[in-house]
Amino acid sequence: MKIALDAMGGDKAPFEAIKGAIKALEEVETLNLVLVGKKEVIEEELKKYKCDNKRIEIVDAREVIEMTDDPVIAVKSKKDSSMNRTLELVKEGVVDASVSAGNTGALITASQLKLKRIKGVLRPAIATMFPNKKDKMLMLDVGATADCKPEFLNQYAMMGSKYLEILLGKKNPTVGLLNIGTEEGKGNEVTREAYNLLRENKSINFAGNIESTEVMNGKIDVVVTDGFTGNMVLKTAEGIAKFVVSSLKEEISKSFIYKIGALLLKPAMKHVMKKMDSSEYGGAMFLGLNGLSIKAHGNSDSNGIKNAIKVANKFAEMNFVEELKKVIDMDNSVEKTLD
Amino acid sequence: MKIALDAMGGDKAPFEAIKGAIKALEEVETLNLVLVGKKEVIEEELKKYKCDNKRIEIVDAREVIEMTDDPVIAVKSKKDSSMNRTLELVKEGVVDASVSAGNTGALITASQLKLKRIKGVLRPAIATMFPNKKDKMLMLDVGATADCKPEFLNQYAMMGSKYLEILLGKKNPTVGLLNIGTEEGKGNEVTREAYNLLRENKSINFAGNIESTEVMNGKIDVVVTDGFTGNMVLKTAEGIAKFVVSSLKEEISKSFIYKIGALLLKPAMKHVMKKMDSSEYGGAMFLGLNGLSIKAHGNSDSNGIKNAIKVANKFAEMNFVEELKKVIDMDNSVEKTLD
Repeated sequence: MKIALDAMGGDKAPFEAIKGAIKALEEVETLNLVLVGKKEVIEEELKKYKCDNKRIEIVDAREVIEMTDDPVIAVKSKKDSSMNRTLELVKEGVVDASVSAGNTGALITASQLKLKRIKGVLRPAIATMFPNKKDKMLMLDVGATADCKPEFLNQYAMMGSKYLEILLGKKNPTVGLLNIGTEEGKGNEVTREAYNLLRENKSINFAGNIESTEVMNGKIDVVVTDGFTGNMVLKTAEGIAKFVVSSLKEEISKSFIYKIGALLLKPAMKHVMKKMDSSEYGGAMFLGLNGLSIKAHGNSDSNGIKNAIKVANKFAEMNFVEELKKVIDMDNSVEKTLD
Repeated sequence: MKIALDAMGGDKAPFEAIKGAIKALEEVETLNLVLVGKKEVIEEELKKYKCDNKRIEIVDAREVIEMTDDPVIAVKSKKDSSMNRTLELVKEGVVDASVSAGNTGALITASQLKLKRIKGVLRPAIATMFPNKKDKMLMLDVGATADCKPEFLNQYAMMGSKYLEILLGKKNPTVGLLNIGTEEGKGNEVTREAYNLLRENKSINFAGNIESTEVMNGKIDVVVTDGFTGNMVLKTAEGIAKFVVSSLKEEISKSFIYKIGALLLKPAMKHVMKKMDSSEYGGAMFLGLNGLSIKAHGNSDSNGIKNAIKVANKFAEMNFVEELKKVIDMDNSVEKTLD
């Protein structure tokens, strides 16, 4: 497979992006990469590594969409940005998938603009993996569409189930509707209506409402929610984890005994924090578009980039977009005219 | 002040409820309590303690709303429940405020039913304290109204500001709108419109949007959100904290060195967990009703109950309901007919 990497996107680009690319090439023998960005910068960076140059191409792009740029304005005005060029390679069929750790809002905009929705997809969703007690689960939408209709959630459930089936080989994964109560009839207007649609949807394995306290209990494989709530949950999780860690650090600094304890416990803590780290899960994917666009965390180090490239490679190998089209074609439960 | 306590409400009632009541009486000399529930059970429990019986009354109530009961059905059918009777004492002016650790949904229903909204209040909100880097902050609504109009959020900002002013003596507290981006124009329809209302509202100190990653940074005193999102954030925080702790415990169990480290660190960890524990903050309050109804966490131990009683006492002393009425009267920014 051939994957395009936005070499200039993310807080630690181009250094960690290129390093991640090299690692991915080492781990996946069948992989070829197209690195997109300022040619001279990429070439300079590549000199640091011994690598098989035949498996790397460079596509020059003179502009960079910064993390602080306004998403819509940046995508439209910086036509020669590495992000835009990366997605154009997917659109033109030059590569099988793309990875970027750049500005999230810009990547949402650019992915939709360049790749367009699959026919019949009401709204695209961003799907991301979360850790749970058993292993991991999928949550979507975590930020593509803030205002969702119940029908969107129903389709997210179908797309998410297919995603998990392909990524983990899990047949008939359980689907939970993220809600503020477990009983039928709980929640807001959107979740109450979505509950009914999901319950009637024979193509998924619906397990009812799931509260965010229980979302990590390992019983649910695919958690469905609107983009506003999903993004909120993601950010709350990040905020709480940070707060617990910083509070603990502050406490530890107060006593020598604590410092010794912390030293002994350090590997265990690191392990737990790694489990919480979203970059371990290969980034987030835009579901519902005519092409594979994977978002690595803006803060990704080389491992985050490598994992995202590997996920992109896997989904390209599985011909995921075509698989998704079949799912959408089967979906007769929604009004195609809703849009 | 005289406070009514639902002695049968909560996972650990009546034991921890009564114990908490005794502790509160010890700490607040001017406090009188009415314990509501099965008379013989309360009397039996009180025998365990040496206390000033002149400061305690018992009101007999023969039914108990269980944590698993359907809220609306339970409130309407169990007319002689301790929860209903407790709130009736507030309504009748027999007591100055009430505390219950019982079924949240039932308490929302019963509080609204018995105490009714203050004239001009569009929707009541549940306000709860959260820890942050500086000290603590207030969040509302965390579950009273799942579907909110922008106007509701604007009023929550005003009620929340008054709450914090009274609880912490903080003049002109900063108000943040919980959102999935910081810039104006971010979020869903409700937050985008609420942003405009809050910005124009001269009676509050609006500081813009706040993301849930940053909500604990100490810059915002009052965080305003709809009841669905607020409840989701609360439950996510609880879920993540639990997951981090259980993952860490699992990791620790794997090595003897870790166990020693954990032993040395135990007081520091306990301190952090205590900081995260909502029962430390005196429970949640229903804002916007004609009477003070405080919700202690369902899982409250005696300290949680004691703290909730102390908060109830403080707000009663400050004549909070009357103060809130003044705020609502000043609020000319909303259409009183919206309702």
